[in-house]
Amino acid sequence: MNKARFEAFSDGVFAFAITLLILSIALPPFRHAPTQAELTHALLALWPNALAYGLSFAVIGIMWQNHHALFRLIARVDRMTVFLNLGLLGMTVFIPFATSTLGSYITMKPATFLYGLTLTGCATMYNAMLAHLVRSHAFSSHVPPASIQQTVVAYRTGWITYAAAMVVALLLPVVSVCLYLIIAAYYLVPRGVDTDLALPAEGAETSHLRAG
Amino acid sequence: MNKARFEAFSDGVFAFAITLLILSIALPPFRHAPTQAELTHALLALWPNALAYGLSFAVIGIMWQNHHALFRLIARVDRMTVFLNLGLLGMTVFIPFATSTLGSYITMKPATFLYGLTLTGCATMYNAMLAHLVRSHAFSSHVPPASIQQTVVAYRTGWITYAAAMVVALLLPVVSVCLYLIIAAYYLVPRGVDTDLALPAEGAETSHLRAG
Amino acid sequence: MNKARFEAFSDGVFAFAITLLILSIALPPFRHAPTQAELTHALLALWPNALAYGLSFAVIGIMWQNHHALFRLIARVDRMTVFLNLGLLGMTVFIPFATSTLGSYITMKPATFLYGLTLTGCATMYNAMLAHLVRSHAFSSHVPPASIQQTVVAYRTGWITYAAAMVVALLLPVVSVCLYLIIAAYYLVPRGVDTDLALPAEGAETSHLRAG
Amino acid sequence: MNKARFEAFSDGVFAFAITLLILSIALPPFRHAPTQAELTHALLALWPNALAYGLSFAVIGIMWQNHHALFRLIARVDRMTVFLNLGLLGMTVFIPFATSTLGSYITMKPATFLYGLTLTGCATMYNAMLAHLVRSHAFSSHVPPASIQQTVVAYRTGWITYAAAMVVALLLPVVSVCLYLIIAAYYLVPRGVDTDLALPAEGAETSHLRAG
Repeated sequence: MNKARFEAFSDGVFAFAITLLILSIALPPFRHAPTQAELTHALLALWPNALAYGLSFAVIGIMWQNHHALFRLIARVDRMTVFLNLGLLGMTVFIPFATSTLGSYITMKPATFLYGLTLTGCATMYNAMLAHLVRSHAFSSHVPPASIQQTVVAYRTGWITYAAAMVVALLLPVVSVCLYLIIAAYYLVPRGVDTDLALPAEGAETSHLRAG
Repeated sequence: MNKARFEAFSDGVFAFAITLLILSIALPPFRHAPTQAELTHALLALWPNALAYGLSFAVIGIMWQNHHALFRLIARVDRMTVFLNLGLLGMTVFIPFATSTLGSYITMKPATFLYGLTLTGCATMYNAMLAHLVRSHAFSSHVPPASIQQTVVAYRTGWITYAAAMVVALLLPVVSVCLYLIIAAYYLVPRGVDTDLALPAEGAETSHLRAG
Repeated sequence: MNKARFEAFSDGVFAFAITLLILSIALPPFRHAPTQAELTHALLALWPNALAYGLSFAVIGIMWQNHHALFRLIARVDRMTVFLNLGLLGMTVFIPFATSTLGSYITMKPATFLYGLTLTGCATMYNAMLAHLVRSHAFSSHVPPASIQQTVVAYRTGWITYAAAMVVALLLPVVSVCLYLIIAAYYLVPRGVDTDLALPAEGAETSHLRAG
Repeated sequence: MNKARFEAFSDGVFAFAITLLILSIALPPFRHAPTQAELTHALLALWPNALAYGLSFAVIGIMWQNHHALFRLIARVDRMTVFLNLGLLGMTVFIPFATSTLGSYITMKPATFLYGLTLTGCATMYNAMLAHLVRSHAFSSHVPPASIQQTVVAYRTGWITYAAAMVVALLLPVVSVCLYLIIAAYYLVPRGVDTDLALPAEGAETSHLRAG
């Protein structure tokens, strides 16, 4: 499996899934031509959909970055990796549906649980894929084992966090939505392999710090 | 025809078609704000749609891999190949509609037959394209004839399998769905040209076996 | 403007537009769970949609090939080309809507005329872009003027053909649909610049003829 | 972050968002099979949707060109740039919804204001990203500071223009639509960095002017 085509296909699916999110924001049909006040009201009533849209845009954006950061360190893509990656993409493409459900019923347990279940599913696939990559020695030889170990811990922590938020969704749905937002905000900051290593094209400040 | 652009266009269509599958999972409109039990029930009632989604995700994923595995061995892309490939993509893009129909009416003969018809159509186009590639000597010179022959047999077997499942769909729709699932699970394992050859970037175990 | 990114963006839009065509095939909502006969009937009643889908898939596929064949001969992409290309893509992306309308009302003049109008619009943009490329000497130096002239004639003929079919649509809608099908079938065969030149990777028979 | 994959992902989202615009043009469902006059009337009644489609196609096309023109001059893509770019893409993907709303209610203040708000949001993200790129010295060393300054001014002017049109939308919605159209038409002409520099592959006339 050619790594470039593998990445291009994954990038394509991430880009399409992130764009399809917008379909979860739609005005309800009006029976008659709405007045200005009715249209304003209908647009404002879409705020949970807009919130869910923003949240999932961040989530898929993070997943794309993680995918990128991970495979930059990988030397070999075997059949099993392609298979697990397909599972990961299958969970990712499910996010627009979970987002649409969350946006429509943001205070209801089934919607918040489904959302957590989907993200936990993504995290599960990421952990499974990482475990396989470690097991099959697929990392480039220049990647230090400590960095790999750090990434394994970070991925596992991510899984636990999502799973915990999913459980909370069954009890306190609104709290779980806040947790999803906090987790997304937190993960927009780089961690593990990403920070330690292999960012030769970073901003001037970082280069300065390194040189210092 | 530039092979890189040919592959990029095909990859784009595969990636987009696989993402559009999610549109086949949608909550029915509620006449009034649903209770928690009603929403849970409505989500659980979507299991056939989720099953069809997973199945088709695997099917398109396999087709993408096969496309990739095939064209890695091809040296020349002529007009006829582009034409047959367009037919193949046309059948592939039809899969989201067949999936949506299958997900909504998973126990009904018209739905299961349409699904089988679509997959058989894809297999037909793959066989036609392979036949043309063999006939026009489009394979790279380093590919041994035995591998090509093996691929021809594997593709023909795939066609027969899908066609058989399609016929079963007319008699026992639920059995045919099981067959589709079994075939998809089976094809996720590599075969023919893919296994014998040209995977220079496989996992460590395989390299070891080869060296042994 | 980097030619590679220009082509990649165009390819992406072609690939997405061709995939979006499938949304023009959709089962109508049933008021109650349909019987097997009703579902079969509803599926068979979608034949005009399937026909329109196949037609437009061929049309966009041809346009993508033409785009590819044209820009392979182009050395420079200036701002005006990007602008005209955007207009061309805007017409192309309109095809899914025209297809959906044609599929739903295949015997009605407004639908067949809209379809012809859309294709004539695409052909207009192609001719405008080609005229600009000729005027601004954007062709590679190795392309013989006779080939360019031949392409200009072929594009103009294409425009006249589509415009004629569009006019027919106002009088005999069913005849115009037949014309659209015939034109698409005809254009799947290469012409002009495409045949004469620059296909270094064609099948063995052609190479043989050339060598002979 | 690899610049090529960063650009490819952005291009994918731009191309996909521009294609999704077509979903904002849809025939309303008919209760019975429409007569020819009714279908014609329904199609003609879609002119605001078609206008909004054309407008947004131009807007996203311009944004894609700006993105391209900007990152051609950038040597480094750091995490913050990826983050701000994600925000920009998130605003861009919102355009299809704003377009759909504008097309359906083109004379109503909430619709025209939402459209202006979305474009102003895009311009805000562009300005924030540019400010970060300037601050972190991410430009290639060959780009003269005067060109960068000119781009900063051009981006700021763009923001002011969109924000002004957005404010007008609250008072005179139809005027604001005219403004959106005028702004889009104006921006299709290159400015700032784009014109001054780094277009080695422009048309023959320009090269001649430069040589003269």
